[in-house]
Amino acid sequence: MTSIVHRSVQHNQTLDRTFFALSDPTRRSILERLAAGPATIGELAEPFGLTLNGVRKHVGILERVDLVITAKVGRARECRLGPAQLENTTAWIESYRRAWERRLDRFGAYVEERR
Amino acid sequence: MTSIVHRSVQHNQTLDRTFFALSDPTRRSILERLAAGPATIGELAEPFGLTLNGVRKHVGILERVDLVITAKVGRARECRLGPAQLENTTAWIESYRRAWERRLDRFGAYVEERR
Repeated sequence: MTSIVHRSVQHNQTLDRTFFALSDPTRRSILERLAAGPATIGELAEPFGLTLNGVRKHVGILERVDLVITAKVGRARECRLGPAQLENTTAWIESYRRAWERRLDRFGAYVEERR
Repeated sequence: MTSIVHRSVQHNQTLDRTFFALSDPTRRSILERLAAGPATIGELAEPFGLTLNGVRKHVGILERVDLVITAKVGRARECRLGPAQLENTTAWIESYRRAWERRLDRFGAYVEERR
């Protein structure tokens, strides 16, 4: 856990922003849609009942952490899945799970000792 | 990806709230501190330079998704790691990574074909 504490002291802004980007159901749905293939801002707006500006805002938040990349294609802006490095995100969650399991083990040992 | 799309249509509020809880560096630091053992609200406040109410607010957000559990001990409130089910969180991230890799593969095949 020490290395993770150390990283967080440096304030890992990418981690903040990635977890935040994933905390919204519309943004997760946009990513799920893009997993099936690229789509323009307009194509994303319709199924989600969003305005173009609403989509642009969500896509901007996803783009900031490389979950999405966009490119101008003619007059439209095409979105596709981006090369986000999610290793830190899963590593953080896994370290929490391990810490929780260690604490359960210690509690088990404590109960065992008192028998 | 289909099952994930389906789950998200049902609007997975726990997923929203868990990602949101993890998007704040102070909240992640609180969890890292609790990985070393339980702490009272007061003990958490000092190292983070937070007011008691500031800690209570963060702890409340963590408690809502079972990342932390708290119990009254005498006049203090003791916090410890909670039994949050983070499987959905990691499953969601992994499905994104797989989708991204599939898209890279298809792009590779497309380039290969055009040679």
